[in-house]
Amino acid sequence: MKEYPVQRAAALKPLPDPDMLVFGKTFTDHMFLMDYTAGQGWHDGRIVPYAPLALEPSAMVFHYAQEVFEGLKAYRSPDGGVQLFRPMENVRRINSSCERMCIPQLPEEDTLAAIEQLVRVEERWVPAKPGTSLYIRPFVIATTPSLGVHAAHDYIFCIITCPVGAYYKEGINPVRIYVENQDVRAVRGGTGYTKCGGNYAASIRAGERAEEQGYAQVLWLDGVHRRYIEEVGSMNVLFKIGGTVITPALTGSVLPGITRKSCIELLKSWGVPVEERLITAEELFDAAEAGRLEEAFGSGTAAVVSPIGEMGWGERHVTVNGGQIGALTRKLYDTLTGIQWGTVSDPFGWTLKL
Amino acid sequence: MKEYPVQRAAALKPLPDPDMLVFGKTFTDHMFLMDYTAGQGWHDGRIVPYAPLALEPSAMVFHYAQEVFEGLKAYRSPDGGVQLFRPMENVRRINSSCERMCIPQLPEEDTLAAIEQLVRVEERWVPAKPGTSLYIRPFVIATTPSLGVHAAHDYIFCIITCPVGAYYKEGINPVRIYVENQDVRAVRGGTGYTKCGGNYAASIRAGERAEEQGYAQVLWLDGVHRRYIEEVGSMNVLFKIGGTVITPALTGSVLPGITRKSCIELLKSWGVPVEERLITAEELFDAAEAGRLEEAFGSGTAAVVSPIGEMGWGERHVTVNGGQIGALTRKLYDTLTGIQWGTVSDPFGWTLKL
Repeated sequence: MKEYPVQRAAALKPLPDPDMLVFGKTFTDHMFLMDYTAGQGWHDGRIVPYAPLALEPSAMVFHYAQEVFEGLKAYRSPDGGVQLFRPMENVRRINSSCERMCIPQLPEEDTLAAIEQLVRVEERWVPAKPGTSLYIRPFVIATTPSLGVHAAHDYIFCIITCPVGAYYKEGINPVRIYVENQDVRAVRGGTGYTKCGGNYAASIRAGERAEEQGYAQVLWLDGVHRRYIEEVGSMNVLFKIGGTVITPALTGSVLPGITRKSCIELLKSWGVPVEERLITAEELFDAAEAGRLEEAFGSGTAAVVSPIGEMGWGERHVTVNGGQIGALTRKLYDTLTGIQWGTVSDPFGWTLKL
Repeated sequence: MKEYPVQRAAALKPLPDPDMLVFGKTFTDHMFLMDYTAGQGWHDGRIVPYAPLALEPSAMVFHYAQEVFEGLKAYRSPDGGVQLFRPMENVRRINSSCERMCIPQLPEEDTLAAIEQLVRVEERWVPAKPGTSLYIRPFVIATTPSLGVHAAHDYIFCIITCPVGAYYKEGINPVRIYVENQDVRAVRGGTGYTKCGGNYAASIRAGERAEEQGYAQVLWLDGVHRRYIEEVGSMNVLFKIGGTVITPALTGSVLPGITRKSCIELLKSWGVPVEERLITAEELFDAAEAGRLEEAFGSGTAAVVSPIGEMGWGERHVTVNGGQIGALTRKLYDTLTGIQWGTVSDPFGWTLKL
């Protein structure tokens, strides 16, 4: 496996209180950097002290958002070891995002090796308290100092890591969401299936408005018909209706979530019927009003699963499972987190021990 | 008018050969910076030596593309003075972009003052050779070092400038374009009407594929029906059909171009009928095949007008005006550039002399 040179930080930071960790605000001592230069390809992968990036004001990332990212976690297992969850899925997905954004493909094995080596270097930062983890953020930015609207000739691939607290500190409380009727996150032919910055920028306004109205997130509709459900906030979404779990099909405007995929694979292994298909807001609310919507939840790396307790769509308001987490949602959460933290066996070979 | 503090560069760069200027690659000696801090608002506007920006690797602009920009030019008039073209339109538009991206509004008069002062400081960089100008690029980036998907609390507003050569060095040659059937640039409910980075990132792939096939740009269709024409490349598009100029209506997914607006106002002042409405690729190609498409051109700050000589749509290929620039396109180009460079009178009050 590729081994990158390491320049150690002169002084290490004190570890934060694991009870006080806020997502994405505290970063570790080191980061991984690798440069891309046209004609030379990706080169000079290295682990260096965590420090600001100095970029020309004309760097393309500041103007044309040629940028993609990934998110995954390192988990402390009961034996004191550290493990990753399906990291090669993230590596493949960042390359899918890169393709759409005209960013050169990353070497997959070497990229996984970079993630592994950085986590080993930062091993003391992987917290042990239940529910905590080390969040890993690989990202690529276009650095060419040029204002022409073209693919850049120069990029930086960077990986930063930050310890994160338990997502559910006080038990899993289902959230309130509503159907967004104004803003659209993505459309077929666009970039919805990628983790490019522009998708997230476009989603901020709806999320802010939802919070102002006391909702945790929005349920996104498709950009073409404004009828079909796509995602919830920045998570995939799954519904249990009449015993079958239904999740929006990957039509190009939906992110192919790794937690989504893992939920589907687990459910199928349990004999639960799963349908990946188009589902309208109307079908969903009709099912809820007929008492057939049994469970609803978002899926993503941060929360694993996030149960939905209440949903609004214009004048229609429904409660899901009496506002409580459903049994199947709970089982998915317990199984996935058990596999991720190494407290239950992993029959799928999803974990990678470092 | 607001006057900002100026920190002069220790050494000034030599001026480039005006015949060798490439768009967006050579930057001047200074830039304007202003910071935004939550609770404090925009503060510390200043002109400083042009230098790299040092940002935390977790700065939101690198991950979630919370960023907007503008583009305008300073022109050297025959009397040796320098003038801007409708700069307040750019200031208002950046604030429209900011609103969509949840970026705090810029103070409009002070922002215009910043543009004016920076151009005065960089006055020696405004080239005098016909067709050359000083391109001005204001932009805002989110700098908060946090990975949560929310509006940032901290921003930088920056203005950089670069001398640019004549867009048409060897006379105006109409370009070949084709209708893009796969990728989509924007959709209603999205961000198409703004100059946010994500729009441009999403457009790069189609532009690259067009160039590979010998076309200058793509003609974008709407994301909903994939029938209605929206823009050409990163320009607005106008067609003269049967004596009337038709341009796509501003439905939310089309940029409200300042050159577009100026073309419409000029055409109306000349008594030319103008329609801002939906137009399908089918209507356009039918008109062309029936000999009714008289002229076609893109409009934007860089080229002013860019005549279209040939268009492809699947198996259909048409030539516009025998591949030559049309008379009305030519008149628009001559009038607009005349007003911009101060060689013809400006009855509209569009120019701002510094």
